[in-house]
Formats: sequence, structure tokens, C-alpha cells
Amino acid sequence: MNSYRAYQVTGQREFSLVDRELHDPAPGHVRIRTAACGVCHSDVLAVEGQRPDPTTPMVPGHEAVGTIDAIGAGVEPRWQVGDRVGVGFLGGHCGRCDFCRRGDFVNCTDQPQPGTTVDGGYAEIVYARASGLVRVPEDFDALTAAPLLCAGVTVFNALRVAQAPVNSLVAVQGIGGLGHLGVQYAKKMGYRVAALARGTEKARLASTLGADHYIDSAAEDPAAALTALGGATAIIATAASGASMAGLVAGLQPRGKMIVVGASPEPVPVHTPDLIFGGRSIIGSLTGSATDNEDNLAFSLAHQIAPMIEPLPFHEAPRAYDRMMSGRARFRVVLDFTLAQ
Amino acid sequence: MNSYRAYQVTGQREFSLVDRELHDPAPGHVRIRTAACGVCHSDVLAVEGQRPDPTTPMVPGHEAVGTIDAIGAGVEPRWQVGDRVGVGFLGGHCGRCDFCRRGDFVNCTDQPQPGTTVDGGYAEIVYARASGLVRVPEDFDALTAAPLLCAGVTVFNALRVAQAPVNSLVAVQGIGGLGHLGVQYAKKMGYRVAALARGTEKARLASTLGADHYIDSAAEDPAAALTALGGATAIIATAASGASMAGLVAGLQPRGKMIVVGASPEPVPVHTPDLIFGGRSIIGSLTGSATDNEDNLAFSLAHQIAPMIEPLPFHEAPRAYDRMMSGRARFRVVLDFTLAQ
Amino acid sequence: MNSYRAYQVTGQREFSLVDRELHDPAPGHVRIRTAACGVCHSDVLAVEGQRPDPTTPMVPGHEAVGTIDAIGAGVEPRWQVGDRVGVGFLGGHCGRCDFCRRGDFVNCTDQPQPGTTVDGGYAEIVYARASGLVRVPEDFDALTAAPLLCAGVTVFNALRVAQAPVNSLVAVQGIGGLGHLGVQYAKKMGYRVAALARGTEKARLASTLGADHYIDSAAEDPAAALTALGGATAIIATAASGASMAGLVAGLQPRGKMIVVGASPEPVPVHTPDLIFGGRSIIGSLTGSATDNEDNLAFSLAHQIAPMIEPLPFHEAPRAYDRMMSGRARFRVVLDFTLAQ
Amino acid sequence: MNSYRAYQVTGQREFSLVDRELHDPAPGHVRIRTAACGVCHSDVLAVEGQRPDPTTPMVPGHEAVGTIDAIGAGVEPRWQVGDRVGVGFLGGHCGRCDFCRRGDFVNCTDQPQPGTTVDGGYAEIVYARASGLVRVPEDFDALTAAPLLCAGVTVFNALRVAQAPVNSLVAVQGIGGLGHLGVQYAKKMGYRVAALARGTEKARLASTLGADHYIDSAAEDPAAALTALGGATAIIATAASGASMAGLVAGLQPRGKMIVVGASPEPVPVHTPDLIFGGRSIIGSLTGSATDNEDNLAFSLAHQIAPMIEPLPFHEAPRAYDRMMSGRARFRVVLDFTLAQ
Repeated sequence: MNSYRAYQVTGQREFSLVDRELHDPAPGHVRIRTAACGVCHSDVLAVEGQRPDPTTPMVPGHEAVGTIDAIGAGVEPRWQVGDRVGVGFLGGHCGRCDFCRRGDFVNCTDQPQPGTTVDGGYAEIVYARASGLVRVPEDFDALTAAPLLCAGVTVFNALRVAQAPVNSLVAVQGIGGLGHLGVQYAKKMGYRVAALARGTEKARLASTLGADHYIDSAAEDPAAALTALGGATAIIATAASGASMAGLVAGLQPRGKMIVVGASPEPVPVHTPDLIFGGRSIIGSLTGSATDNEDNLAFSLAHQIAPMIEPLPFHEAPRAYDRMMSGRARFRVVLDFTLAQ
Repeated sequence: MNSYRAYQVTGQREFSLVDRELHDPAPGHVRIRTAACGVCHSDVLAVEGQRPDPTTPMVPGHEAVGTIDAIGAGVEPRWQVGDRVGVGFLGGHCGRCDFCRRGDFVNCTDQPQPGTTVDGGYAEIVYARASGLVRVPEDFDALTAAPLLCAGVTVFNALRVAQAPVNSLVAVQGIGGLGHLGVQYAKKMGYRVAALARGTEKARLASTLGADHYIDSAAEDPAAALTALGGATAIIATAASGASMAGLVAGLQPRGKMIVVGASPEPVPVHTPDLIFGGRSIIGSLTGSATDNEDNLAFSLAHQIAPMIEPLPFHEAPRAYDRMMSGRARFRVVLDFTLAQ
Repeated sequence: MNSYRAYQVTGQREFSLVDRELHDPAPGHVRIRTAACGVCHSDVLAVEGQRPDPTTPMVPGHEAVGTIDAIGAGVEPRWQVGDRVGVGFLGGHCGRCDFCRRGDFVNCTDQPQPGTTVDGGYAEIVYARASGLVRVPEDFDALTAAPLLCAGVTVFNALRVAQAPVNSLVAVQGIGGLGHLGVQYAKKMGYRVAALARGTEKARLASTLGADHYIDSAAEDPAAALTALGGATAIIATAASGASMAGLVAGLQPRGKMIVVGASPEPVPVHTPDLIFGGRSIIGSLTGSATDNEDNLAFSLAHQIAPMIEPLPFHEAPRAYDRMMSGRARFRVVLDFTLAQ
Repeated sequence: MNSYRAYQVTGQREFSLVDRELHDPAPGHVRIRTAACGVCHSDVLAVEGQRPDPTTPMVPGHEAVGTIDAIGAGVEPRWQVGDRVGVGFLGGHCGRCDFCRRGDFVNCTDQPQPGTTVDGGYAEIVYARASGLVRVPEDFDALTAAPLLCAGVTVFNALRVAQAPVNSLVAVQGIGGLGHLGVQYAKKMGYRVAALARGTEKARLASTLGADHYIDSAAEDPAAALTALGGATAIIATAASGASMAGLVAGLQPRGKMIVVGASPEPVPVHTPDLIFGGRSIIGSLTGSATDNEDNLAFSLAHQIAPMIEPLPFHEAPRAYDRMMSGRARFRVVLDFTLAQ
């Protein structure tokens, strides 16, 4: 095989399926044969043209799992042809910038973002910087692992950032692609879990995922409901809406932390007395590094945490994207490269 | 002496000088002969009637320094007649509520607030719960110590909450009653300090207080200016204005923290990507406990930190309050009970 | 009933069953009708006379569970007659000493130790300082709850002190009264768990309790065995032997922590390069406060953690003590006050 | 110039001055023209033959300061010919091992140690891995900067690890090459400082360096003396003697930490009750990374911290080594490459 197929976007929302020529990976890079790629809401950055040069063709996708099939010069022996690996939102730190020199790889200033600044996983082949590679255990199904590489690690890390006391009440706001994983992680980390969402339709699901409480934010004030439960020590805010986040701070216990992982288009109007009286905080958390992802996969494997997915064959990527954007997927759409076409 | 004089407020902004009868302190309380009391912006809670029952007469003042002259039943031997003590914003924890049982006295749910919920320091005598007493070293001038009991400990504790790396850039927003102390504390804790204020008039003062940089927020975007200096690891936000706080987050380094101590009447519109990309946080911090205050006084004494004050005799308390409210005081108005009247 | 029966010790190892007159609890204290009391190795302090005045009669026992049946003056309304409560190793903080003023109740310098400095739970009635009371949930069996009040909270808190990364390898050294609980806690907190003990007889049990690995320290070097598993991020050292602890540090990952809860009679010879190269630490941890115990009971209830016990009727307390000292109990001997006599 | 002079050791304590041919730096490396190199006690590892292959010629020295004069392939543009740089005990992380992938460069498992596993600074030319380079400010005298690259950063980092509360009592055990810097750092970080040493001769010096207290461990029990001062929140143990360290733990306040930086040949016999009662800890700390060193240099420059040095010309390196080993140097011997020979 000398070529591979890829979906690329050039203008806005226009996918084209192209044949690309196979080449050797650049120094410090590997070539991966894709087995699965999650379809994530951040794919809008590429597809809707919210990127440096939106007219350059770009292959979306930053939740790719596959197998290394070629290795570039200078790649460490840790990585070998045949290894099962993944690539997430952060495409590999440079190792040289001010942040990398301090070991803060998430904030690397010279890090590619697969699917946004470099070609990503809506393709049979992905080229990836070795420092961004995530080792995926062999017994981890590719379709299951893929959404953990961005959606999963984002909430997993947010919970680690929160450092909530074990067994305390942790709230997960938004039971969607991120939140339905957040409930599982929080439960398996030993917390009591409150799930927050609009409407009653997700109540049963939340319970199945491990939530001890379900709060319908359409029917009651979620901060008041949390306070009635004693207050949350942490809230993982996944729903990208400033309005829905704003009032939540009051549902935290004193010293509680709201971890914001969903970027909202509009600002969150924070009421400062809620912060000052009670010493509460609001903390941003961005996905995670390659080793954060490996921690996340190990934890998920040990505790049987899995995303709920809707697999679609690779060649239906445009439809998969639309499905994700519809908000109706339960919960992660994943491209399957092994299905017959 | 069987009576003492006190300024009390009943309606809005109406001070009346009254004689009150001296009585024995209640169990667990001491009686203090006031030497000095700072006039703090939070006095508006009492004076402008922003308290549970605004028509009850109330003596404002929560930065009182004096000498114990009577001791109630059950007070521990730590406190003796003649001891030099102070009382700040938090009037003594109950020792029994859920928060006290966990040692989190700042969040005690049954704590009097001198000058707001119980009579405070605009009086020759203050009655205080023993658990709220702050030991004031003998060699600490009362007029100097008084403003440290609320303004001082607020910024001192905010800096402790921030846990910024030593020698890193810390910004103090607002060079007023709190900020002019914040600059001194930050410098003596080993930080590089940027002072942020509107206009150029405070530039020289900021430098005298120890600031390495002065940023005129009327002339340049303060976040951009901080970024040009490499970004702050912490910003102590003292100016009670949501608008002026909102943009500052972008002036933090990744992983940086904005500590909010000044409650703003309007919400702070927080731009979530500033938090998420860079893992920044916004943390509320409320004044401090009795031992926080003792730490603060010890630090201030060791490092010769002092507030800039405008002393006025006790009997001019109404004028002192107006002076404080004018915003023109440099920087803390303090009632002096030793001046001839 | 005007009297109650108590086992007291006066000389060395001499128990006498005495009748004591019932009296009202002192101010700030409550009277508890005992339902169960654990027999703990620290009871040697009283029984073997290792206490300030060994000739004073003393009732041993610091793992007592019962029901409040009288309340002294000044006790907060939190506690009512009929409440189910417990008392552990720390008998209630004073609220006034330097440590209490900072909220560090474990280090209170004026705290009674039930069973050592004040009468404890080998009696039908226990008098206890209200600040030391632990609320025991109604649905918690008294015999099960009792050993958690010292043995349980000790390892629970040690794990909280360790702050090991979730899912990492945590080792529990010594599978006895403390260790068999430590394995359960560690597992339910989301760790991979290695149990360390001498011999093979406890291997199956360790597995049942949740251990992922069993290391027989008689057959292999435990530090080497841990290293072969990738190294532990934390070791909870429960076995009171300096010799067996000394070498364990080398089984920690870099940055790993050994938490010491079992006081050894002889010093632990620490090899400093093991600490320096790898930045490892050794941290002492002492049981826990009343709220630590409440956290512990809540966690145990939520995660179905229970001690393995050998109940004996109260009147067999001397035999219970001997059984505990024999080292053959599996694992906690508990006095049952409800059994017919 | 096609050659440079270097002192190398082959057997035990035998220095030979050799001419070596200049070559281009390897990929990822730079070539440095040495201006100064500190003589550190760890040089014994090379000189006394305590290294993997003691018969291989090795150039000692790991406190080198100089100027880049050639740059190897693949070195980032951060480093340019003419830059002032230093190299410390850790010669540059690999960026690929398990620890590097987590940003823990101090624990890199593939890191050269200049002067021990690769040629170091007792030479006119040093070749260094770019990841280990420390930028040395231009206004920093080379002789002053050199000892900060190992001795300095070791105590600076130990104090950062300790996270002692500001203004609390910090003890520095051993007033020698490390300790005389430790006193200065601790003071400038805002602590009260107790200096511990044997005899009275260093008392005045300690005071000059900033110590508030001096404890002569030959005349009084240092733990008791610290306790009399209220107890230390941190002890920086620099003196490489297990015996002298052992008793110090008792001089810590509850929750206090002893940071061990000086490896002792014999074990430290730790009394476990000192750890358990009071929750004290013993923590190892190893020198620091390149950016730790840059933080240290910036802090030292800002706070005018400098080692006391005894400069000797490069060609007297053997004598310099002997002087260092004599224990009589006050306090750091530094090779000066600019002195006439």
C-alpha cells in the first residue's frame, strides 16, 4: 500500500475524502495505522475553520488509536513497530520551551494539536510526534480507548486537580460526552457523586453510571440542591455554558473547588462573595499529557470504566461529525477503521 | 469608671455618642480597654445598615487593639488582665460547629463579627470572645497594629494561600488600604512585586513600599503589561470592582492564581479559556483567624511592615468614617483613644 | 442502676473487676453506656504500667462504642441522650492550647487518652469529653465499629497523609490488626495494593481483602519485590519493628513515602542515600481526630469495609487481653457488652 | 587552540594534568570554555574511585561556569555561542525515560553526572548536554556562581521542599559549604533561622550570615535547644553524619520536616515515636534540575546571596581538592581559570 485515505476539511464543514501518499515519518515521529478515532466537539476548531489558516486542508481528529507501522529517526527504543498507541488533543511536547524545561508539558508552547494544527485521526494513517504517544494496553478495545484520549483524560485529570477528600460529595455538571465518564471516574475514586443535568431523562442513566444523586437543573436550583446535600467539595463543570456554570459556585462547600474543563463562548459571571466567604476556587484544567493519558487508561482498565459509544465506519466520517454536533449521540461517536466499506 | 463612651449607629450613617454602663464580661469573654481602632471599608456593613437588623444600635469597628481589663468565667489562663490584645473581623470561633470540629475556624458558622453582628471598636470598651483574641506584642504600637488586624491579615493570608514560588512575580492590584500593605508583604516574602493602580500618582509610593514594577492600568492593559514581564504567578486582587478584575486572569502565568479578597458588588465576568488553557485559578480568601493574625503581627514586626495611617481622636469617629469613605485617606484611618479630647 | 462494672488495672497485668458508682458527667463531658470495646495493642500502656502513675487504678480501652445516657453542663446540642457515639485513642481536644488554636487537634497538648490517662472502655460506662466524641451511624454494628476507632482510623489517615496518586501501587506492611484494614482501605481508595507479611499463610487472606500482590518477606527481600513491581508510591508500615521497616524505603518509587504508624521499640536505621536519591520520605502519622474517625466510619460504611473480629463477652476482658497479646487473634478482639454473662 | 588542559584522575587520588584535543560537541551537546569550577565534597566519587569503572580516566568537577564556544547538532536556539552557562551535579535529562516523561528530571534514569560518569569541570573545556545547561546571568561573577550550582541549589531546593510557613523557625544543621548558604537562603525567604554546629567558633559568622540563633551542639542537646525556641518547622540537615542527624527529629515542631541533603555513610537511627507523635517527617532532597538552578541564581542575585570562597588557580587543582578535603576551607574552594599560571 502506497497511499491511504483521509478526510480533510478545507472550507467550512466541507469534508473531502482524499488519497494521500504514504511517506516515512519525520525525525522524532512515528507513523500509525489508525484503528479507531473518536469524534469530539473540539473537532469544530478544524471543521468550522477556527484555526490559524482555515483554508489549508486539515484532517480532523484527536482521539486516535492504532498501531505503529514505521518509526522516524531519533525515536527512542520505547516505541517499536507493532506497538499499540494513541494520540490525544496534545500532540507531543517539544522538550525545549520554558514550560518543558520545568516539566509542565501540558503548557508546552510548541506542541502540535492533532486535527487542528497538524493532520489528525480522520485518516487511515496518522503521523505523530513520539513525545505525544500514549501507550494503549493490548487488551483495551480500540473503540473504547479512543474517546478516553481526550474526553476521558479531561475529566480524569480534572478530578486529580480537584484533590477532593475521599468519600466527599463530588458533582459532575453536564451528563454528556465528558460528564458520563466523569461520573464513572468520580465513583471509582471513592467519591459520593451528584450528577447535574437538565431534564429527567438522564436520571436513570446517571444512576447506572454510579451517581448517588441526580439533580435536574431545569427543575431546581442546582447550587441549592447541592447545598441541601451538604455541599460539594468539587464540581467538574463540563457543560460549555457560562450561564449554567455561574451559579454553581454557591453549591460548593467552603474550601470547595469548581474545575472548569468546558470552554464557554461567553464569560462566566462569578459572584465574588461566593469565592471570598468560604475560600472557594475556580480552576481551569486542560485535557492531559501523554502520561496523564496512560494513567487514565490504566485506571479505566483496572476499574472497568468505558465510554458509551456509537461506532460508525470510517467512510461515514461526515455523518459521524453531524451526529456528534446534533448533541443526540449517546455519548461518543467513534470512527471504526475495521468495518467493511 | 462605671461607664464608657461608644459611637453607635442605628439608622443609616447616623452616629450617636452614647454612655454605656460597664459590666462584667460574659462567660468565655474578656473586656478590653480600647487603645486604637482602625476604620475599615467593611464598616459600611454596620453604618449603612447592611446587616441583619439595621435598626438595632451597633458599635462599628473590627480593628481594635487594647488591654484586657476583666476576664469572664471559663476563659483559659492564656489570657490575663493587662494583656495586650486585638480583635479583627472574625470575633472568635465557636469550637463546636462542623467547621470548627475540623479546625477550619475561618468558616465557623457561629462566629460573631465585631462591628457588624456584635458591638465593635468605635468604643472605649470592647467585649470579645476569648477564642477571637489576637495577642499583640508589647512593642507594637497600637495605632500601627490596628489596621493589620483586618486589612493586613487579609493580604498576608492571601499571599499564603497563593503559595507562589519564591522570587517569582506577584502582582498586587489596587494600591489602597489593603494593597499598600500587600506590596510590603510580598516583597518581604521574597517575591518580585508589580503594583497595579490607575494613574501615575502612586508610582513613586509603590516603589518606596518595595514594588519592582508599577503598572498604570489607565494607560496600559494590565494583563498585557504583566505578560510582558513574564506573567504573574499570583495576583492579589484587592480592588472591589468586577470589571477591573475580569481581565487580569490573562496576566497570570500558566498555573498562576488570582486571589480575590475584595468583594465586588457586580460579578466578575471570567473568560473560561483563560482558565482552561494554562490551568489558571481564581481563589477567594477571607481575612484570617486569630492565629493567622498572630502570624501576621510577628511577620510584620520581624520585617518592619507598617500601614500608612491617618490617626484621628476617638471622638472624631464620624469624621474618620467620612474620611475613609472619601477614598482620599493615605491609607488607613485609625481612631486614637489616647489623644486628649 | 446506680453502679456499673469496670475492669481496672493497678499493678502490672493485674485486672480486677470492680463496681463503681454512677455519677453525673462533668461539665463538657457525656456519660456513655458501652456496647462494645476493641482490645488494642496500645492497651499495654495501661496494663503493663507504661503510664505516668502506673499504680493508680485505670480502666483500659480506647475503642469504645455505646450510647449517650447523660450529658454534662455546657455540652453542645449536637450531642443528645440516646445518640450512638464512640471514643478512640484521642479523648477530646482542649480547644485552647497552641495547637488547638491552629486547628491541629491531633497534637493538642491537653488531651486525655482514654484507657491510658483517663478511664476507658473496659467498663459498662465511659465518661468522655464531648470534643472527642465520634458519631457512629445507627446502621453500624457496634462490634464492627469499635476497632475502626483506633486501628481503622490509623491506617485510613495514614493513606490520606500519603496522598499517593490514584491507581498507583501502595504497599501495606504487616497483615495484622491494622494491616488487614489497610489493605481494604487502600483497595477502595482506588490503589493497586501489595500486602507484605512474613510467611505464606496470609497470602490467601490478603487476596480476599483486596490485595493485588502478596510479598512474603521471609522468602524474598520486600524492597526488591516492590521494586520488581515498579516500586510503591506509598508504604503503610504497621509492623512495630525497626528492623523490618528499615529496608523498605528502597522499595519506594522516587518521590514515594513510607508512612509509619506502628511505633517500634528500637530505632529504624535509615539509609540516607535511599532518601536523597529519589527524594523519598518517611512520615509519622498518629491515629486521628474525632472528625477523621467520622470520615473513616462514613468511608467504611460506603465501601463495606469491616474488621475481622473475635468477640468475647465483657466479663472475659482479661482473657481478651491475653488473646490480643498472643498475636494469634484474627484480627481484632472486641469486648461485647450485650452477651449474657 | 586545538587542545585544552584537563586534570584527570585514574587511580585513587592521583591527578594528572593532560592535554586533550579539542573536538566538536556531539549532537545535543555544547562545548564550554570554563571560567570557574567549584570543588565539592562529592568530587570524592571520582577522585577516590567510587564510580562504575574507577580506572577510566575521569575529569572531576560539577560546579562549572563558562561560555559556550561551540554548539552541536540539534541543540535548540535557546543556546548560542557566547552564552554564559553553568553545569551542576545533574548533567542533563534524557527527556525519554519514565521519569522524564512525567517531568521529573531530577530522577531521570539516563542522566550523566559531570565529574563522575562524564568528564567535568577540572578542565579548560567542558562538553555538556544541552538539557543540563544552566543560564548564568552576565552580571554574576563566575567564581561566585560556581558553588551555587551544586552546594547552593541543594539547600535552596531543600528549603523549597520543606514548604515551611513564612516567618517560622528553620534550622540549618552544619555550617559548612552547604550550611553557610542555607542560613542565607532561609533568612532571605523570610524565616527565623537557627544555625547548628559544633563549637563556638562559627557563632559570630552564623550571625553575620543572618542566623537569629546559634546552637553549639557540643555544649547542648540541639533538639532540646530547638525545642526551647519553640521547635523548628524545618531542619535542613547538611552534615553527613547519621549520629548527628538522629536526635534532631525531636527538635522539630509537630508537623515539622527534616530535609536530608547530606548522605551519611552510616544509617540514621530514627526513633519512630518522634515521627508518629507529632506527625513529623524526614525527606530526602537531591540537588536540583537546570531550572531549579536558574531559580536559585535569580534568587541569589536578587537577594545578594553569595558563597564564601577560596579561589585557587586552575593549575593548583590537586591542592584545591586537598584543601576542600581538609575541612578547613571557608567555605568553598573554587578553581579560577582566569588567573595567570
